[in-house]
Amino acid sequence: MSLINVGSILTYEVRQQTVFLFQISSSTTSHQQVSLETLEIAPHVPVENFAVGFDGNRLQRIIVEPCQLQVTYKATVALTPGVDQPEHVEETTTSLMPPDVLTYLNPSRYCESDLLARFAFEEFGGLQPGFSRVQAVCNWVYEHLDYTPGSTTGTTTAADVLLQRTGVCRDYSHLAITLCRGLGIPARYVAGYAVNLFPPDFHGFFEAFLGGHWYLFDPTRLAFVDGLVRIGVGRDAADVSFATLNGNAVLTSKSVWANQVVDPNSPDGMPVNLQAITTA
Amino acid sequence: MSLINVGSILTYEVRQQTVFLFQISSSTTSHQQVSLETLEIAPHVPVENFAVGFDGNRLQRIIVEPCQLQVTYKATVALTPGVDQPEHVEETTTSLMPPDVLTYLNPSRYCESDLLARFAFEEFGGLQPGFSRVQAVCNWVYEHLDYTPGSTTGTTTAADVLLQRTGVCRDYSHLAITLCRGLGIPARYVAGYAVNLFPPDFHGFFEAFLGGHWYLFDPTRLAFVDGLVRIGVGRDAADVSFATLNGNAVLTSKSVWANQVVDPNSPDGMPVNLQAITTA
Amino acid sequence: MSLINVGSILTYEVRQQTVFLFQISSSTTSHQQVSLETLEIAPHVPVENFAVGFDGNRLQRIIVEPCQLQVTYKATVALTPGVDQPEHVEETTTSLMPPDVLTYLNPSRYCESDLLARFAFEEFGGLQPGFSRVQAVCNWVYEHLDYTPGSTTGTTTAADVLLQRTGVCRDYSHLAITLCRGLGIPARYVAGYAVNLFPPDFHGFFEAFLGGHWYLFDPTRLAFVDGLVRIGVGRDAADVSFATLNGNAVLTSKSVWANQVVDPNSPDGMPVNLQAITTA
Amino acid sequence: MSLINVGSILTYEVRQQTVFLFQISSSTTSHQQVSLETLEIAPHVPVENFAVGFDGNRLQRIIVEPCQLQVTYKATVALTPGVDQPEHVEETTTSLMPPDVLTYLNPSRYCESDLLARFAFEEFGGLQPGFSRVQAVCNWVYEHLDYTPGSTTGTTTAADVLLQRTGVCRDYSHLAITLCRGLGIPARYVAGYAVNLFPPDFHGFFEAFLGGHWYLFDPTRLAFVDGLVRIGVGRDAADVSFATLNGNAVLTSKSVWANQVVDPNSPDGMPVNLQAITTA
Repeated sequence: MSLINVGSILTYEVRQQTVFLFQISSSTTSHQQVSLETLEIAPHVPVENFAVGFDGNRLQRIIVEPCQLQVTYKATVALTPGVDQPEHVEETTTSLMPPDVLTYLNPSRYCESDLLARFAFEEFGGLQPGFSRVQAVCNWVYEHLDYTPGSTTGTTTAADVLLQRTGVCRDYSHLAITLCRGLGIPARYVAGYAVNLFPPDFHGFFEAFLGGHWYLFDPTRLAFVDGLVRIGVGRDAADVSFATLNGNAVLTSKSVWANQVVDPNSPDGMPVNLQAITTA
Repeated sequence: MSLINVGSILTYEVRQQTVFLFQISSSTTSHQQVSLETLEIAPHVPVENFAVGFDGNRLQRIIVEPCQLQVTYKATVALTPGVDQPEHVEETTTSLMPPDVLTYLNPSRYCESDLLARFAFEEFGGLQPGFSRVQAVCNWVYEHLDYTPGSTTGTTTAADVLLQRTGVCRDYSHLAITLCRGLGIPARYVAGYAVNLFPPDFHGFFEAFLGGHWYLFDPTRLAFVDGLVRIGVGRDAADVSFATLNGNAVLTSKSVWANQVVDPNSPDGMPVNLQAITTA
Repeated sequence: MSLINVGSILTYEVRQQTVFLFQISSSTTSHQQVSLETLEIAPHVPVENFAVGFDGNRLQRIIVEPCQLQVTYKATVALTPGVDQPEHVEETTTSLMPPDVLTYLNPSRYCESDLLARFAFEEFGGLQPGFSRVQAVCNWVYEHLDYTPGSTTGTTTAADVLLQRTGVCRDYSHLAITLCRGLGIPARYVAGYAVNLFPPDFHGFFEAFLGGHWYLFDPTRLAFVDGLVRIGVGRDAADVSFATLNGNAVLTSKSVWANQVVDPNSPDGMPVNLQAITTA
Repeated sequence: MSLINVGSILTYEVRQQTVFLFQISSSTTSHQQVSLETLEIAPHVPVENFAVGFDGNRLQRIIVEPCQLQVTYKATVALTPGVDQPEHVEETTTSLMPPDVLTYLNPSRYCESDLLARFAFEEFGGLQPGFSRVQAVCNWVYEHLDYTPGSTTGTTTAADVLLQRTGVCRDYSHLAITLCRGLGIPARYVAGYAVNLFPPDFHGFFEAFLGGHWYLFDPTRLAFVDGLVRIGVGRDAADVSFATLNGNAVLTSKSVWANQVVDPNSPDGMPVNLQAITTA
C-alpha cells in the first residue's frame, strides 16, 4: 500500500457570474481509497457534488459572483494497486470484452484512431500481443516525441502530434491511446495527481484494457505508475478538464502537489515501471 | 401515437472468423416501445445481447465462421413523443444541467466544438436562446450544405464539412451538433430508422438538450422528426455504427425500411416539423 | 507621387555558422522607384544579391560565423501608383489572362483555394464581378476575423483561419487570397513596409489581378494601400519570409519603419482606400 | 540516347463554353528534344501556345463551345539524360544554391515541409548526405505506403498521406518531396509520360537538386527513371494538372501512352534505377 497526500489550490479572478465545473477530487475505486478529504471554496458558495458516468468520476459545480476565488482541495489517498507480471498480461479479444469497454475502442476528439489505425498496425502489428505491446507503443511515443511545454494547444490531436513530434503529457497519452485503439486495444485517458512530478502540475496518463483489467501507463516517463492518483477517466482530455468555465473568469494561480507518505515497498524489488499496475 | 414497422437485412461474405457488433435494434425509452421484435441470424450462431451505457443503446455481438451471413431485424415500434410548443422550450443554463448531460457539451471525434465555438457564437450568438436557436442552426446547415452522396468519408468531421459545404445525413448532424455545443447547448447524435426516407437507409439525426428534455432535429429535412425511430445515441457517429467488424468480412447487401402503420394524427394540425418533439 | 522612408534593423545572436536569406529590400517596379538605398551588415561579411523570379523580388544571402549580427536596411521609395476608378475595374476572364498570371490561381501552402472554392462561390458568387467583389471579400474577412496577435502560428492556413476566426495580417491576406482564387480571380501575397502601421512591423497584404493589372488590397485596414511599399510578391507568405536561416541563430530584436516624406495628395480628395490602386 | 513515342487522347463532353488549359506537351530541355510533334483539336479551334515560367513548361489554351471535344497529342522525344555515379552526387549547401532553386525549399499546397521537417530530420537526419539520402527517402516512402488507386483525392496532402499510408503516384511524390525539403534538399514535382507504366496514364514523379543538377526519382518504382518524359515541373501537382477547366465540361475518356523506340542501352549494364539520372 502507498499513502499519498494530494492537493491543489486554484485561484481565479471572477469578472462576471461564472459557473465552474471542477474535476480535481480523487476517485474512489477498488484500488484507491480517499480519506481526510476537504474542499474549501473562498468566498463560501454552495457546492453541488456529482458522480458522473460509470467510472467513479466526480464533479463539483459552483456558481460564483465576481470576486477573487480560491479553491483548495486536499486529500490523503491510499493506493492498493494490483501488481501483475507483465509477461502474464494478455490482450483481450473483442469477442470477450465487456460492453462498456468497447466504447474505448472508438475514436475521440483528440485520438483519431480511425485515421491512425494503419500506421499503428504497420508499426506494432507484428509484435507479440499483450502488455509488452502496449509498452512498445509507450516506448515508441517516448522516443519519437520531444517533451516541449508550449508546443501544443488545447486543440492539438494525436495526428498533429504524430506529425510534429513534440508535446506535453496530454499529447503523449493521446498518441499512445490512439495507437492502442488502432491495434484493437481499448484505451482511456486518466487525469490525476502524480508523485514527484516536476514541475508539479495535474498529470495526464492512460490505461489500456488487457486481460480483463485496466493497466496504467505513462509514456512521458515523468512519474512512476504506482504513484498516480486518479481524478477521472475519459475518452481523452476533453472529458476530464480540471476546470470548465462558463462566464468570465481568469485563472491567476495554480498550485498542485502529490507527496508520498508511506513508501510503496515494491514487493519484489523490481523497478515498478517494469511491472503491470492495475487499478480497475 | 404512431406505429412504425422497422427492419433491416444485412448480408455479409465472411472470409475469416469475424466478431460482429451490431447496433440495429430499436431502443426502448419512455417515448418508444418495441414489440414483435425478431433478430434472425443465418446461419445460426449464439447472440450476446448487451445494454450499453445509460441511454438505452443495445448491442448484439456474434462470432461468425466463414460463410454467407444474413442478419434480419424486424420490429414494430410505438412512438409516443412529447410534443411541446417551440416557443416555450428554453435553453438550460450550465448551472442547472444534469451531470450526465454535461458530457454532450464536450467536443468529440467528428464534432470539434472547441474549434468551431467562435464561429458558432458569431453566427448564432446574437439570436434568442431556445428551441428556435437550434432550429436556426439546422436551417443554416440545411441552406449552406449540398446533400451529396459520396462527397464525404468515414473520417470527415464537422470542420471539414463546414469548409467543403457538402455531405450526407451524418455530416449534417455532426455540423449541427458541433455548432450547438459551441453555443453551450448539449447535443448528441442519434442513429435510427426514418419513415419515408428516400433512398431507404439507416438515418443519422440529432438531439439537443433544451428545457430539461432532449428534442429531435433533422437538419437534412429528409424525414419528419415524429417518424424517427431511435436505435442509439452517442457523442457522434463513432459511437453508433450499425456494424463494427473485427476479422474479415464484406457487406454485400443492405436493405432498410421504416413504414408507418398508424398515422400519427398530428394533434393540432400543425406540420410536425414546426413542433418540438421530445423523446427522452 | 509619394515619398516614403523605409527601413529595418534586425539583430541576431549567431551561435554557429548560419546562412541567412533576407527579403527586406524594396522592389523596383514601374510604380516604385528606390533611391538612397543602403544595406549594412555588422560585422562585415560579403553579400550576394539576387533577383529572383519574374516579379522584381530581391534576395540577399550572407554566411555568418558566430557573433552578434546587425543588419540595417534603409531606402527612400517613390511611389507612383496608378489610380483607377473602382467601378471601371473589371475581372479578367481566364481566356484572356497572361500565362504568368495563371499561376496565381493555383492553391498554395497557406491558401487552399481548392478546399474553399465552394465556400467562396456561395458567399461571393452572386456578386457583381469586378473590383467591388474583391472589396467585398476584404470586407467579409475584416468583419469575420478578430485581429489577435499570437492566435496563429507559422503553419496556420486560410482554412484554419476561416474556422477559428482570428489571425494577424498574414492570415487576413491568406484568407482573402484564397477566396479570390476560389472565385477565379488571381491573387498573390505581398510582403512590404506600411506607412503608419501600428505597432510598426513588416506588413503582409495582397494583390488581385483585375482588368489586366494587379491591384492592392489590405483586408486588415491597418494601413492605406497607397502607403504600401513592396518588398516582394509570392503565392503566399511561404515565399517572402523576411529572413530564412540555415544554421543556429536567434533573432534578438527587430525594428521596422515606414515614414511618409511627401504627402500623396490624393488626386480627387477621395479617401484612398476607396480607390483602386495598381502597382504592377 | 532513348527515343520514346508519347501521346494522349482526351475527349470531353463540353456543355457550355469552356476555357481549357492543357499541360500535355513534352518540354524541351537540354536533355530532352521533341520532334514530330502534333496537337490536333477536333472540332478545330484556335490554340494559344504559352511558355510558362523558367523551366520549359508549356501550356495550351483553347476556348470551346458545346461539342464533343477530342484533343490528340503525339510526339517523339529523344532523351539524353546525364548519368552520374550516385556515390559522387552530393547535396548542395544553401549557401551555394542558385536563387531560383531556393523556391523549391518552400512548403507548398500538397507538400507541407514546414509541418514535416522534424519528422524528416528524425528519420533521415542521421544519414550520409547525398544522392543516397534521397534514395533512402524514396525507399521509406515505397515501403511505408500502399499503392491504392482511389484512396486519395485532389486535396490530399503529404501530411495526410504520411498518416493514412496509402496513395497513388502523385501522393508518393508529394511525400518524398516534402521530406526532401524538410531535410533542406530542394525538390520539385514533375508531371510526365512514363514508358511501360501500367495501367497507362500520366505519371507524377519528382526531382531533387543535388550537386548542382536536378536528379529524377520515382518513389512508386512503377517506371524506370530513364523512361520518364517531362511535361512540366512545379512545386507540386497543383502546378501541372494535365487539364484545367473553366466552364462546364466532363472528361469522357483518356488514353495515354509512352513507348520506347530505341533501347536506352544502359551504358554500363547497371540497372538504371541504381544510377543517378539528371535532366536539368
